[in-house]
Amino acid sequence: MSAPDPRLSINQATIKHADLATALQVTRAGGVQAIGLWREPVQEVGLATASAMLTDSGLRFTTLCRGGFFTMPEGAARRASIDDNRVAIEETAALASAGAEGSTAVLVLVAGGLPDGSRDLIGARERVRDALGELAPGAAAAGVTLAIEPLHPMFASDRAVVSTLGQALDMAADFDPAVVGVAVDTFHIWWDPDVLGQIARAGEEGRIATYQVCDWKTPLPVDVLLSRHYPGEGIIDFDTLTRAVIDTGYDRDIEVEIFNADVWATEPGETIRRTATSFGATVSPHLARP
Amino acid sequence: MSAPDPRLSINQATIKHADLATALQVTRAGGVQAIGLWREPVQEVGLATASAMLTDSGLRFTTLCRGGFFTMPEGAARRASIDDNRVAIEETAALASAGAEGSTAVLVLVAGGLPDGSRDLIGARERVRDALGELAPGAAAAGVTLAIEPLHPMFASDRAVVSTLGQALDMAADFDPAVVGVAVDTFHIWWDPDVLGQIARAGEEGRIATYQVCDWKTPLPVDVLLSRHYPGEGIIDFDTLTRAVIDTGYDRDIEVEIFNADVWATEPGETIRRTATSFGATVSPHLARP
Repeated sequence: MSAPDPRLSINQATIKHADLATALQVTRAGGVQAIGLWREPVQEVGLATASAMLTDSGLRFTTLCRGGFFTMPEGAARRASIDDNRVAIEETAALASAGAEGSTAVLVLVAGGLPDGSRDLIGARERVRDALGELAPGAAAAGVTLAIEPLHPMFASDRAVVSTLGQALDMAADFDPAVVGVAVDTFHIWWDPDVLGQIARAGEEGRIATYQVCDWKTPLPVDVLLSRHYPGEGIIDFDTLTRAVIDTGYDRDIEVEIFNADVWATEPGETIRRTATSFGATVSPHLARP
Repeated sequence: MSAPDPRLSINQATIKHADLATALQVTRAGGVQAIGLWREPVQEVGLATASAMLTDSGLRFTTLCRGGFFTMPEGAARRASIDDNRVAIEETAALASAGAEGSTAVLVLVAGGLPDGSRDLIGARERVRDALGELAPGAAAAGVTLAIEPLHPMFASDRAVVSTLGQALDMAADFDPAVVGVAVDTFHIWWDPDVLGQIARAGEEGRIATYQVCDWKTPLPVDVLLSRHYPGEGIIDFDTLTRAVIDTGYDRDIEVEIFNADVWATEPGETIRRTATSFGATVSPHLARP
């Protein structure tokens, strides 16, 4: 078997049931060079220990998942969320420093859904913008890029009121691109009639903080959150989307992030192998720049 | 109990298990003045009989559901689809003539998903535009408006490659607004960051062929097609969306179309009552023009 693509990064959610030590070990053992981490397994061992483990692994760090969830109105819950996001910014900076050369200090932000009982989508979206305004100075000071992740519109009410790449870019527009960018995830944006135009715009505006890939397939499972698949198993046109991202000059690592009960039930080393194979077949052919 | 709103139209899918006779009877008995029909129950009795039954009911006819499903490449299946859509246009014209004064000759079009094995979303969308071009002359001759219905992006791969109101309007732009318009259905477009701007645009361009309402609620059921609810039971802001539609000058009937296993299991007369009550509480207050 050939070595995995050097730009492949395993998002830790793809091997959800692996603890941090296992995740680092199987990723490295699989010949993958980079990893995106989640806060919970990092916090389980503590940031200092996690950072040391990451350094020992020799892996590049690509993103921390995830901050956000700040659509609620002013009050104690909102303050707690903003404070927690400040912690996430510090975690991101520490992990990026601990990762191998070429690591990127990117914190992925999922906006959050409508507050319970609310139908005020416009207000919720305004509060996302407000939260970015509160967090941006700290992110800038820490050298961290906040990556707003538009989620598929099927999550607009309960998970993320930011639904399109264009909307995320509009929100980011008030800020320095080094501080507020966007996460371009094929699963969430493939359907958008304006996706190619918005990817080009994101590139022009210098805001593609991370490019993430996985596939879409129907029928959707009972929990639609788990409807993500290996690239190539569904209907997403990775050729066109990847070329659009690469054509902007994007030169960072590319994460594969799969929420899928069957994938999670697989032995993690096997998942790494399958991820590398599917990435090599669907994404790698489009990474060369003309 | 007060009489149902005079602008309420029951889309027959809301009482899916009722045959045409029952649907007409319970709608009228419930004091509702208009109905949107589906092709299958009409064809079950034949178009001439269905038209006579509709005339006898005294109800206005609002839309026929549905044509479309023409994303496949050229070949026998595509020809069959185009031919079938021509039949649907004739059915729409006949039913609109048979309905009471104020009926509207609107055929709702659901584009269809990606052909099996295809990842070419852009091509599929082009073929929708081509199909409109083939059907428009016949629709114009028959006095029928083809209403392109953008469906929620969760259906973009398997049911409708037209995903936003803006995209539907872009497709319609090549045609006379009397011949090609759009269906504005709250369930499909509520999440769109540009929904208010696109409703206003649809009004300015004279393309709102039908306004349809039902609600969105999570968690989604196993079959996401059935995740529609009575207005007021979910998170859609009917105040803002309805006012936006009415502010364009929209003065037609408004359909309630609910695909929901629990609603379908209810006795149809009861469903009509509940529909009228929910419509009265959520939509009616916003129908007066200033």
